[in-house]
Amino acid sequence: MSPETHPEPHPQRLPASLPQTELTRHRRLREQGSLDRADLEAILDAGFVCHLGVVVEGRPLVVPTVYGWDERQLYVHGSVAGRSLAGGTPVCVTVTHVDGLVLARSVFEHGVNYRSAMIHGEARKVTDPEEKLAGLRLLTDHAAPGQWAYARQPSRKELAATTLLAVSLEEASVKIRTGAPDDGDGPDAALGLWAGVLPLTSTWDAPVPDPLLPQETPVPTHIARREGTRHG
Amino acid sequence: MSPETHPEPHPQRLPASLPQTELTRHRRLREQGSLDRADLEAILDAGFVCHLGVVVEGRPLVVPTVYGWDERQLYVHGSVAGRSLAGGTPVCVTVTHVDGLVLARSVFEHGVNYRSAMIHGEARKVTDPEEKLAGLRLLTDHAAPGQWAYARQPSRKELAATTLLAVSLEEASVKIRTGAPDDGDGPDAALGLWAGVLPLTSTWDAPVPDPLLPQETPVPTHIARREGTRHG
Repeated sequence: MSPETHPEPHPQRLPASLPQTELTRHRRLREQGSLDRADLEAILDAGFVCHLGVVVEGRPLVVPTVYGWDERQLYVHGSVAGRSLAGGTPVCVTVTHVDGLVLARSVFEHGVNYRSAMIHGEARKVTDPEEKLAGLRLLTDHAAPGQWAYARQPSRKELAATTLLAVSLEEASVKIRTGAPDDGDGPDAALGLWAGVLPLTSTWDAPVPDPLLPQETPVPTHIARREGTRHG
Repeated sequence: MSPETHPEPHPQRLPASLPQTELTRHRRLREQGSLDRADLEAILDAGFVCHLGVVVEGRPLVVPTVYGWDERQLYVHGSVAGRSLAGGTPVCVTVTHVDGLVLARSVFEHGVNYRSAMIHGEARKVTDPEEKLAGLRLLTDHAAPGQWAYARQPSRKELAATTLLAVSLEEASVKIRTGAPDDGDGPDAALGLWAGVLPLTSTWDAPVPDPLLPQETPVPTHIARREGTRHG
């Protein structure tokens, strides 16, 4: 077998276990914490919008933005936060999927089924045009697979006008909650109340063509095929 | 008509226009900014999970958590972030709904249709038991209307074990993007590519009963009726 079809594991791949650092250590609800990098990657895979946190003059700023990623790094569209980000600014990037409401017998045991990843790192402004192009490709094809090859790619000028940030995926923590409420075998079970989960699902709908489009323009397969599929 | 059926406008209601402060002023993509408090309230109404940003030892921390609100304040479940929140800690609370992918002719014009609210304020730890109870009620009934009256309400001990934070809704900013991509009347229109929006919808599914529940336990109407309805 050739090395092409069975490549060696990526030499720079990050450890399969997430690190336990001062920032990532699970202090609360430890049973919801995961140290499996595969869980982190599954959560990143399932979304395309993150919440980017930065500190501006001592105050937190939390901005929703799009992201893409490879084995080692997360790329985020800098936009709003970009103005205040010098190289090495500490950031926290959080990606959350809400899977349902956990309705328990007691209000106290109510909660949310969710999957959430929190990445701690220093934002690096991507300046090298080749890395920027590669990062934007990751970002575009992560949100809309196939779209990078289909759409017109950025010009030199557009590339210069885009702020792209890179954050290492090294220091991350993951929390996941699934399943039924926790008070099913406690004293509140005797209350006779209904308890369970109200699940929430996110779905891609039918593509809506730009009204300015000539009528005969076909919807490309890579977009059309997402209709009705689940997101998140 | 009695004052009960036609109450006077709430005397403490916040101004209908959002303030333009150093924190809320729209610096980028101004056309997406809204100064209408009704837009803020509609965004808060549509969700129940926010991203709470705090600064811990100079670093940002962005934590997903549940919220409720009234005319003047946002209440958030303190949990993870609670440990590092003294009174008056600056926070940023962001609520985002993703409505679809904006697929343009050029990668550069790609974007997201979304509604997002950002609230800047100081977190106040709610310590008064009555306010805490009222705040938790807002939070519970916001996520699951009718559930506060149905489930067992918090005991004194449970109340003490819950961290609830209040943030004023005074200083907030809103951004909304809707509709088609922006390059339909530019030179890229000549490329003949499909362009439009791929909408994303979030829906409540059928309630899943706790496996520990006696089989005959009926699903209460306030939960059952949400099945199939849209969220966000």
